[in-house]
Amino acid sequence: MPEAINLIELKQLIQRLRENDRRAAARLITFIENGGPDQAKHIIKEIFPFTGKAYIIGITGPPGAGKSTLVNSLATHLLNQNFKVSIIAVDPTSPFSGGALLGDRIRMKDNFQAKNLFIRSMANRGQLGGLAQTTKDVIQVLDAFGSDYIIVETVGVGQSEIDIFKSAYTTIVISVPGMGDDIQAIKAGIMEITDIFVVNKADLPKADKTVAEIEAMLDLSGRIDINHQQHCVKIIRTEGWRPPVIKTIAFRGENIGELANLIQKHKDHVKKTGILEQKLRIRNRHYVAEILKYILSKNIEKMVFTNPDIEKLIEKILTLDKNFDPYTISEEILKEFLVRYL
Amino acid sequence: MPEAINLIELKQLIQRLRENDRRAAARLITFIENGGPDQAKHIIKEIFPFTGKAYIIGITGPPGAGKSTLVNSLATHLLNQNFKVSIIAVDPTSPFSGGALLGDRIRMKDNFQAKNLFIRSMANRGQLGGLAQTTKDVIQVLDAFGSDYIIVETVGVGQSEIDIFKSAYTTIVISVPGMGDDIQAIKAGIMEITDIFVVNKADLPKADKTVAEIEAMLDLSGRIDINHQQHCVKIIRTEGWRPPVIKTIAFRGENIGELANLIQKHKDHVKKTGILEQKLRIRNRHYVAEILKYILSKNIEKMVFTNPDIEKLIEKILTLDKNFDPYTISEEILKEFLVRYL
Repeated sequence: MPEAINLIELKQLIQRLRENDRRAAARLITFIENGGPDQAKHIIKEIFPFTGKAYIIGITGPPGAGKSTLVNSLATHLLNQNFKVSIIAVDPTSPFSGGALLGDRIRMKDNFQAKNLFIRSMANRGQLGGLAQTTKDVIQVLDAFGSDYIIVETVGVGQSEIDIFKSAYTTIVISVPGMGDDIQAIKAGIMEITDIFVVNKADLPKADKTVAEIEAMLDLSGRIDINHQQHCVKIIRTEGWRPPVIKTIAFRGENIGELANLIQKHKDHVKKTGILEQKLRIRNRHYVAEILKYILSKNIEKMVFTNPDIEKLIEKILTLDKNFDPYTISEEILKEFLVRYL
Repeated sequence: MPEAINLIELKQLIQRLRENDRRAAARLITFIENGGPDQAKHIIKEIFPFTGKAYIIGITGPPGAGKSTLVNSLATHLLNQNFKVSIIAVDPTSPFSGGALLGDRIRMKDNFQAKNLFIRSMANRGQLGGLAQTTKDVIQVLDAFGSDYIIVETVGVGQSEIDIFKSAYTTIVISVPGMGDDIQAIKAGIMEITDIFVVNKADLPKADKTVAEIEAMLDLSGRIDINHQQHCVKIIRTEGWRPPVIKTIAFRGENIGELANLIQKHKDHVKKTGILEQKLRIRNRHYVAEILKYILSKNIEKMVFTNPDIEKLIEKILTLDKNFDPYTISEEILKEFLVRYL
């Protein structure tokens, strides 16, 4: 059983969150991770009026592309400009969450900078509402915390990464020279939602070739619809913005300032053109859709495991009769029972 | 767009599937992987009467534990006993599916054995209905194919593995000597559903210590409820069966015969005690629940992205007004709209 949170404790934690208490932020995130949407609900309702200020950057790329190093360099650059930065490192393949292990990730110049940085790793621990949903809730907490920038770093380019990316205002995809297969992977789904391409480890051979390959892909993709509909999921692509391709050498901070400038340029662009507001609208739709799916899933589980009439229906599957396969039975349940459970 | 399947072609494919045509099996699985539950529905409805004969074994463990080698050894052992064996290698962290890469996994003695083996890898490509759901459908295809044993091999011990495991009749967890952390990971959720523990690479030091640690955990877990309710998900634990812990050295086939004997013993046990039928009942409930979730999720996406009244409601989130946070808005949509969409 996840630890429950009471309203008085919650209000105190949120007060402390607003006073830049990082332990309060960590605690609230843990509540969300352990308690799922049922617990997150109470937290989000309270902090909601304090959100809407942070700028959210999504960064992804294949293992070995130097994501963490690049994120660290970028964060350091933003800290030097006196911004408050939060990093959420999402690893769907790891079972470990927390902040402790990441404490040494960035070498801080002074305490002032340390106070302006918050790092949290998030793992796939069978989150009750799914990793993308949890990430959305955690972003809200770090927004109310007063972050100027929230960097969401994810491993790989699978569906869960794409779902997480839907929360970002500027999305960055990292590759490294000579990774032909990964370019293929990028093609598969992430191409449409990338705002800036980074070819990291640009001191390796073939960096320029990789840049050229990405540029060629961008030429091929041609005009991009502003509302790209795919599996009923709208993805906003920034009209009037051809994603730049930039070479970096993250481990020695090379071209990180230029990357930060590109982010700023993209930020200005999406604000000026109204695309940011559209992105927010679409993010909110996904947010609501995920919450609704969670509530309904919970009701379905309950129904399927407690209703004796439904039990009788499902029993029929065991007969292996042609008319009682799992799909037909499901359709029958949907028609006969589900409406009453809502 | 996934390639559509017509009923005549489907009937021909199923005819060929029943005649032991492996290409037909591969084709049907590809249809399921690409088309999701909407396509799987038509396939499952047709093959359903031919299912129910295969015995399903689930095998998991951390990376490096030697899962594939063990699965190969076990499959070879079963092939030598003239059984027809299918292997589904599920890797939630990989974007690649297919069968070709795995062709050389097992060195076949002769063509007869080759005809009795089917191997398929399944990756997490953002399956429309989720990986666990796709796996259930694929199991049905390989059951109708006439497999005596279907071995489902998964990487890691995360939630997706546990979901996949709910389809298995005998579940095997592999660890290796000296993997303290992984024992912790096993504790976290998979302990309750494991029927046989394997300590592989038993030629390494500390093999006996690892065996002792697992035995100690089993002592601690004490009496186990036959219906273990967790997050509204019932998991059947085999009453009257203390999971044996067995040492193997898979790469040279050591103790694989003994492992096969334990599987047979467990199979006899679950059949005799009626637990197998109970497992089937629960598997069918999960099956139905997953299908219902898929149908509802699809409806939610459609609703949230096409209904103008709902659009207006979601717009309110942008005001950052305390009364219009995403959770409150979701609850309102649930009450006001969702019923009409079912």
